[in-house]
Amino acid sequence: MIIIMKHGATTEQVGNITQYIERWGCKPHISAGAETTIIGVIGDVRRVDRDQIALMDGVESTVRILRPYKLVGRDFHPMDTLVNVNGVVVGGEKIVVMAGPCAVESREQLIETAWAVKNAGASMLRGGAYKPRSSPYSFQGLGEDGLKIMAEARDLTGLPVVTEVMDPQMIPLISDYADLLQVGARNMQNFALLAALGKNNRPVLLKRGMMSSIEELLMAAEYILANGNDQVILCERGIRTFETYTRNTLDINAVPLVKQLSHLPMIVDPSHATGKWELVEPTSRAAVAAGADGLIVEVHPRPEEALSDGAQSLKPDRFAQLMRNIQPIAAALGRSL
Amino acid sequence: MIIIMKHGATTEQVGNITQYIERWGCKPHISAGAETTIIGVIGDVRRVDRDQIALMDGVESTVRILRPYKLVGRDFHPMDTLVNVNGVVVGGEKIVVMAGPCAVESREQLIETAWAVKNAGASMLRGGAYKPRSSPYSFQGLGEDGLKIMAEARDLTGLPVVTEVMDPQMIPLISDYADLLQVGARNMQNFALLAALGKNNRPVLLKRGMMSSIEELLMAAEYILANGNDQVILCERGIRTFETYTRNTLDINAVPLVKQLSHLPMIVDPSHATGKWELVEPTSRAAVAAGADGLIVEVHPRPEEALSDGAQSLKPDRFAQLMRNIQPIAAALGRSL
Amino acid sequence: MIIIMKHGATTEQVGNITQYIERWGCKPHISAGAETTIIGVIGDVRRVDRDQIALMDGVESTVRILRPYKLVGRDFHPMDTLVNVNGVVVGGEKIVVMAGPCAVESREQLIETAWAVKNAGASMLRGGAYKPRSSPYSFQGLGEDGLKIMAEARDLTGLPVVTEVMDPQMIPLISDYADLLQVGARNMQNFALLAALGKNNRPVLLKRGMMSSIEELLMAAEYILANGNDQVILCERGIRTFETYTRNTLDINAVPLVKQLSHLPMIVDPSHATGKWELVEPTSRAAVAAGADGLIVEVHPRPEEALSDGAQSLKPDRFAQLMRNIQPIAAALGRSL
Amino acid sequence: MIIIMKHGATTEQVGNITQYIERWGCKPHISAGAETTIIGVIGDVRRVDRDQIALMDGVESTVRILRPYKLVGRDFHPMDTLVNVNGVVVGGEKIVVMAGPCAVESREQLIETAWAVKNAGASMLRGGAYKPRSSPYSFQGLGEDGLKIMAEARDLTGLPVVTEVMDPQMIPLISDYADLLQVGARNMQNFALLAALGKNNRPVLLKRGMMSSIEELLMAAEYILANGNDQVILCERGIRTFETYTRNTLDINAVPLVKQLSHLPMIVDPSHATGKWELVEPTSRAAVAAGADGLIVEVHPRPEEALSDGAQSLKPDRFAQLMRNIQPIAAALGRSL
Repeated sequence: MIIIMKHGATTEQVGNITQYIERWGCKPHISAGAETTIIGVIGDVRRVDRDQIALMDGVESTVRILRPYKLVGRDFHPMDTLVNVNGVVVGGEKIVVMAGPCAVESREQLIETAWAVKNAGASMLRGGAYKPRSSPYSFQGLGEDGLKIMAEARDLTGLPVVTEVMDPQMIPLISDYADLLQVGARNMQNFALLAALGKNNRPVLLKRGMMSSIEELLMAAEYILANGNDQVILCERGIRTFETYTRNTLDINAVPLVKQLSHLPMIVDPSHATGKWELVEPTSRAAVAAGADGLIVEVHPRPEEALSDGAQSLKPDRFAQLMRNIQPIAAALGRSL
Repeated sequence: MIIIMKHGATTEQVGNITQYIERWGCKPHISAGAETTIIGVIGDVRRVDRDQIALMDGVESTVRILRPYKLVGRDFHPMDTLVNVNGVVVGGEKIVVMAGPCAVESREQLIETAWAVKNAGASMLRGGAYKPRSSPYSFQGLGEDGLKIMAEARDLTGLPVVTEVMDPQMIPLISDYADLLQVGARNMQNFALLAALGKNNRPVLLKRGMMSSIEELLMAAEYILANGNDQVILCERGIRTFETYTRNTLDINAVPLVKQLSHLPMIVDPSHATGKWELVEPTSRAAVAAGADGLIVEVHPRPEEALSDGAQSLKPDRFAQLMRNIQPIAAALGRSL
Repeated sequence: MIIIMKHGATTEQVGNITQYIERWGCKPHISAGAETTIIGVIGDVRRVDRDQIALMDGVESTVRILRPYKLVGRDFHPMDTLVNVNGVVVGGEKIVVMAGPCAVESREQLIETAWAVKNAGASMLRGGAYKPRSSPYSFQGLGEDGLKIMAEARDLTGLPVVTEVMDPQMIPLISDYADLLQVGARNMQNFALLAALGKNNRPVLLKRGMMSSIEELLMAAEYILANGNDQVILCERGIRTFETYTRNTLDINAVPLVKQLSHLPMIVDPSHATGKWELVEPTSRAAVAAGADGLIVEVHPRPEEALSDGAQSLKPDRFAQLMRNIQPIAAALGRSL
Repeated sequence: MIIIMKHGATTEQVGNITQYIERWGCKPHISAGAETTIIGVIGDVRRVDRDQIALMDGVESTVRILRPYKLVGRDFHPMDTLVNVNGVVVGGEKIVVMAGPCAVESREQLIETAWAVKNAGASMLRGGAYKPRSSPYSFQGLGEDGLKIMAEARDLTGLPVVTEVMDPQMIPLISDYADLLQVGARNMQNFALLAALGKNNRPVLLKRGMMSSIEELLMAAEYILANGNDQVILCERGIRTFETYTRNTLDINAVPLVKQLSHLPMIVDPSHATGKWELVEPTSRAAVAAGADGLIVEVHPRPEEALSDGAQSLKPDRFAQLMRNIQPIAAALGRSL
């Protein structure tokens, strides 16, 4: 952190600042110019509140130098983290595709979809048992029955399963059935949930909030790592902007930027990021080309009967086509499916 | 809902749609024009998924007519709802000001602030015991010790207290101490929390998410009402935009619009909505002038020592000035403080 | 500006930076810490491109200290600027209300509206002769005929008139008829237009772009002042956000913030900022309460026949009511209408 | 358009609406249900103002069915438009890369860059002679001298040149030198400029405004086509969002969506869309993978000396690497460079 003092700040004011800095275990470094005095702060400044310093007498402004995250940053951990989801490795050479319906609706629907996505080349099965819906009158998921169906689909097909957890109390139950626990976009800053997942031993799929910055996504992951769990996969799923022709705006910039800033794997959800099934394949190609480590795609055997997200779900044959068409893109980047 | 069929849609396709509509207990009303057939849907269409219909054969597009909320809407309940917080009525003639520190930091700090805001004319005391912080390394609140201090401050000053609840499991504990339970902006779509608060008997202060639309705010309140609790106060606290000179953008339009759409009281948080103490008084005046039923303001005896949100906290004398300066605005609208 | 060097930056690298700074007529001030070297830059750094320095060898990052504007800032000119529009002073004790139709549609329509808004207490008449419409198929305005009608309305009622200019070539013609030249939101960064208005002698009403930050608004005004014209009135007219229930989001924070940063008058356009006539009065009250120096309001005798913006236009009796209801708010701030 | 009447609307009110519709040359189609009357409007409804109808007595709401654009839409013109820029065809099988500096700074700089980008495989040379800068104190371009240098570079290398036009008066001069006239993001809704370019005979590169919707981009192109010029290339260059780690957010969704809605070619500017040179190559790969018809990339021989946009400019060797790395992506889509 750098503190810029006001023109004419007194020695006493500078002294108050330096004492304050030292109280937090940091070291001040004063450079007194003819017009302005600048104080550099050295040490672990992440705990020092810049806002408070900005309010102290004689301070003109303050400037943050360090990123606020640590455990998730490449500085701290230069090597890529590999996340192992029941045998499927995310973050390595292979691009991992997770696919399945928005919600588990019935045994038949899920098993049919599981075989279809497996045959098309998917590595993991997605499906919601507990659904966060913006209306209390919408279908809320099958609950534990849905979890049981997912576990059965895994046993039949061998695909590890990923499903959403919305409440810290649900973590033990869902961990009994699922291989990868998803934090949905609306819960990205549900810190009670993040802390509890940090103390759990299942890998976590952390979706970016629809209006959360890249820094907030990394800080949310930092919560999980700081609580003891480093098996975290990040997911870009579109952000909210002024554009209304699409459901969200896929922030493709975030893919290479997060890969540069962090060692954690980063995947993309083209279904939520666009909200239109016609855009899922072209944006999936773009995500792989930008360097994503995987995709999570909504697939439904009969989208027109889906209880949620039908408009953005692919039919199995379209999904198979998507898998064929991202293969040469992956190859162009020296990766495989 | 209105369904517009494609030019050349077949009788069979129209028939499929009408069967689908009837399956959900609604009545189709077909008007076949020379070029286009339009199907109006009558009945409780809130449960029918427009997205699915949009995917059915022969459908060009669909249009929503009804608002998706019901219990929170003025159509359903034309009279203003009054929320009674331990004797303080919100939503009536009196403009209710809640004030206090971002976080309870010590007994001394809170009691001192409580007397100061009471003497300036505040009707309720705010303070955080459990703090949702974007960094795991920031101060997270005093927990139950903070709740005890708040309850003591209420006993001393007579001011009802409002504090945040982040996790469904914490509701019973916090209800033992607090008079009004706050849902923070980051948890506005934490549906597990909303449902649990709906089954609780304490009034709720629901803050708009920084990334949430007015419709989503009303739908979040609908969750609480649909679960049995109609004592809900809404709060505009600024939304996230591209502007960086301020912490958030106070959506002043939302105040009269929500009052028009809903019977629930609506207050404004000028501290979070601006992030700068210099802007708190002018935006408080604006909020009252726009028709807000109250304010929630951060006040700290020594903002430069605050463990959070110092930059947007008022000192007690500035807060007293704010109270004096909103009084004539309230009077201009025929209201009192 | 402050330049933070990388850990281990060489003396030669620091030397390159200091030479570069001196080439732009600024003075470097080096403070070499044990871990990091920091270079403060003193002088008129507005011309130095921070982005380039950020690319030089050995540089970790750079930090801007100064605001990029100068002539429009309070530091440079602490006293409020008063803008005189043909005898009506904007920026003083009196709150100035400009009112009239979106577009001049006919002589009858404009003259009728002019008398109505004058009788209700407006100080200036607005009306568009050249309209920037997002569709080439929409009504584009009456052109010079519209200007003539506006001039006649001024002669009859004594109200100065404000109208939009879209193209540098049109400035002489429009200056022949109008008292105040408006730059519309879509042209806020039409720099050719801004420069030409700076060389003209008519006062300018500069509307904030719907996509422009407060800093960009001030920089756009800086263009006009830097070209020689300091008679500029700023106007907040709503920004584009994710919210869709309203046409734009009125950034009420911008009112007190701009008044703090700049000496120029600041008014508010509640019609465009909301897009709904029902919200115009409450947001007008809010604007005055927040410290705006005036309002610009769309009024039409028969909004349902308006060729543009009917949904956000007030009928004359509603406008008269607005004027009555903002009067006590103005009085509460020690101002008059 | 569909008009939904209020419950209990009178026959007279319905009659007023139908007369109004017929006045605009459209045909009403009434379907009177038991509870609601719905009026479908048939004909060229683009000229009818929905806002006015919404204000008429008895109207509950109105719904737009048609897209507001026509000439740029695929319905009107199903085949892809090919734009011929002095022999280089945009919109066909070949992916066209335009490259060069943000601004022409000197003859040496431009000629050197022109040869470098040509040798790396670029098909067109970009460079600014008149620069729209947000500060009046920044470098504003070399003006006509810059145009002459660009023309010389074309004569030497054979690369057609693209440069920005900011003012309708400049069109003849710039058309004397340049092959493709660019409308910058800040001028996307400068309707005077768009209309003038429609009457000119040079192809146009129309950049999306940083806060303009896809619909507004298409409507801006509609202005050019409606004025007689159908040689228009669209360009996605990033939109403004809340994210601050990048300069803009590249809306990759817009690429396949615009290709679906319109017959015009669509290219991507990864330099402005990211603001960071490290992100230019991965997002270029993504753009090609999503189906873009080309790229426009900032290249500078010495970015650290650039007078603008240095931070987002590639050095020639990095640009050559980009060209090599997008080649297999293009091949995967059956296209060539």
